[in-house]
Amino acid sequence: MHLTSDTSSNGLRERLFVLGDIPGAIWVPDGPAKDLPLVLLGHGGGQHKKSPGLVARARRYVTTCGFAVAAIDAPGHGDRPRAEQNSDLAAQAISEWRDILDAVQKLDWVDADGPVGYWGVSMGTALGLPFVATEPRIKAAIFGLVGRQALADAAARITIPVEFLLQWDDELVPRESGLALFDAFASREKTLHANPGGHADVPLFEVDSSERFFTRHLLAALP
Amino acid sequence: MHLTSDTSSNGLRERLFVLGDIPGAIWVPDGPAKDLPLVLLGHGGGQHKKSPGLVARARRYVTTCGFAVAAIDAPGHGDRPRAEQNSDLAAQAISEWRDILDAVQKLDWVDADGPVGYWGVSMGTALGLPFVATEPRIKAAIFGLVGRQALADAAARITIPVEFLLQWDDELVPRESGLALFDAFASREKTLHANPGGHADVPLFEVDSSERFFTRHLLAALP
Repeated sequence: MHLTSDTSSNGLRERLFVLGDIPGAIWVPDGPAKDLPLVLLGHGGGQHKKSPGLVARARRYVTTCGFAVAAIDAPGHGDRPRAEQNSDLAAQAISEWRDILDAVQKLDWVDADGPVGYWGVSMGTALGLPFVATEPRIKAAIFGLVGRQALADAAARITIPVEFLLQWDDELVPRESGLALFDAFASREKTLHANPGGHADVPLFEVDSSERFFTRHLLAALP
Repeated sequence: MHLTSDTSSNGLRERLFVLGDIPGAIWVPDGPAKDLPLVLLGHGGGQHKKSPGLVARARRYVTTCGFAVAAIDAPGHGDRPRAEQNSDLAAQAISEWRDILDAVQKLDWVDADGPVGYWGVSMGTALGLPFVATEPRIKAAIFGLVGRQALADAAARITIPVEFLLQWDDELVPRESGLALFDAFASREKTLHANPGGHADVPLFEVDSSERFFTRHLLAALP
C-alpha cells in the first residue's frame, strides 16, 4: 500500500493510497484513533471513491459512529483506465476487495480482527454482493437498488444481517426483481427499506438508518 | 374525562381514565411536563391499552423521545364488554379516537395545537388507518401487518409521512396484499420496512426506528 496523500478537515482525516493499480481512500477521526471497526463503501456506476455522497457518508460513519471507512475506485471508474477488458467484473471485484481488506486491516487505525461492514447500492451491490458472499470478515451489509438477475445465487449464500434498499418507482430496477433479490438472502436478519421515487431518490434518512444498522452490528457494546 | 388512577414508576407517570364508556391511559414523564407532542397507540387484536408491549413502547416514547402517549381499549377489548354489536368498527373507531384526541389535547401535559403521531399495527392499522385518513391533527403514522382489503381507499387519502411494517412470512397477511396496501398510500414520504418471520415476529429494532420516525416528524427542532 502506497500512501499518496494525508489531509484533515473538520474532524475527518483522509488518506489516499494505491494498492497495486487500485486507488483507494481511508477515512478516520482526526486525532488518536486505533483498532476501529471498519466499513467498506462500494460506489455506484459512474461515481468514484471520492464522490460527494460517498465522502459525506464516510464522514458520518467516522464522526458519528467512530468507524474507519475505506473506499476504492471500481474497475473503469475514478482514477482507473476507462477501457475495461475484464469480462467478469464481479470476480475481479472479489479479488480486489479482498486485497484491499487485507491491506487496510494492517493499518493501526483498523481493528485487525474486528468486524467489518459493507455498504454499496446499485453497482456497489452488483460488485459487492458476490464479494460479501465469499468473505467471512464481513459481518453486516447494506445493499440495494438492483434486481435478482445474476445475484440471487450469491445472495442465497449470505447469512449475515442485511439491510436492503429498494426504490418503489425505480426506473432501472423492476420492483418485482428487487423484491425477489431481497427474498433470496439466506440471512435470518434482513430488513427491506422501500421508499417512493426513482433510482437516485433514496431519502437522506436512510443514511441515519444505516448508521444505526452498522452501530448495532459492528459495535456490540452499544445498546 | 374521568381519571381513575395516577401512578408513577421509573420515570413514567401513568394516568388511567374513562371517557364516556372508553377506558384509556395516558403516559407522560414523571416530573414537570407541559405541552408535549402526542403519540396515540392503537393495540392489536386480543390486546388492550396496557398490554406489556404497548406499555413498553409508551415508556420508550416518553422517556427517550419526550412525547406524551395515549392508548385506549378498542371495542370489545380490555375493560370493555366482549359482546360487540357494532357492525362498523372502523367508523366507531374514528369517532372514539376523535373524542379521545379532543379530550387528551385539553390536558396540560399535551400540546393542544401540536403535531400528533399514530402508531398501530395489525388491528391497530385496521381501526387506525380510517381514523388517520380523516383526522388532520395526525402528522405522521406507523401502520402495518395488514393487507389491502378494505383499507386501500382510506390509504389513498393519506398524504402524511408513513412508516409501514410488513412481515415477509406473515401467516395472516399475504405478502402481495401488504405490498399493495403500502403502494396505496398517497404519501410523498412513505417507507416500507419488511422483515423475515411471522405476524408476531417484528424485530425489536423497529421500535428504535419508530422513535426516529416520530422524532423526525413530531419534533421539528431536532436534527
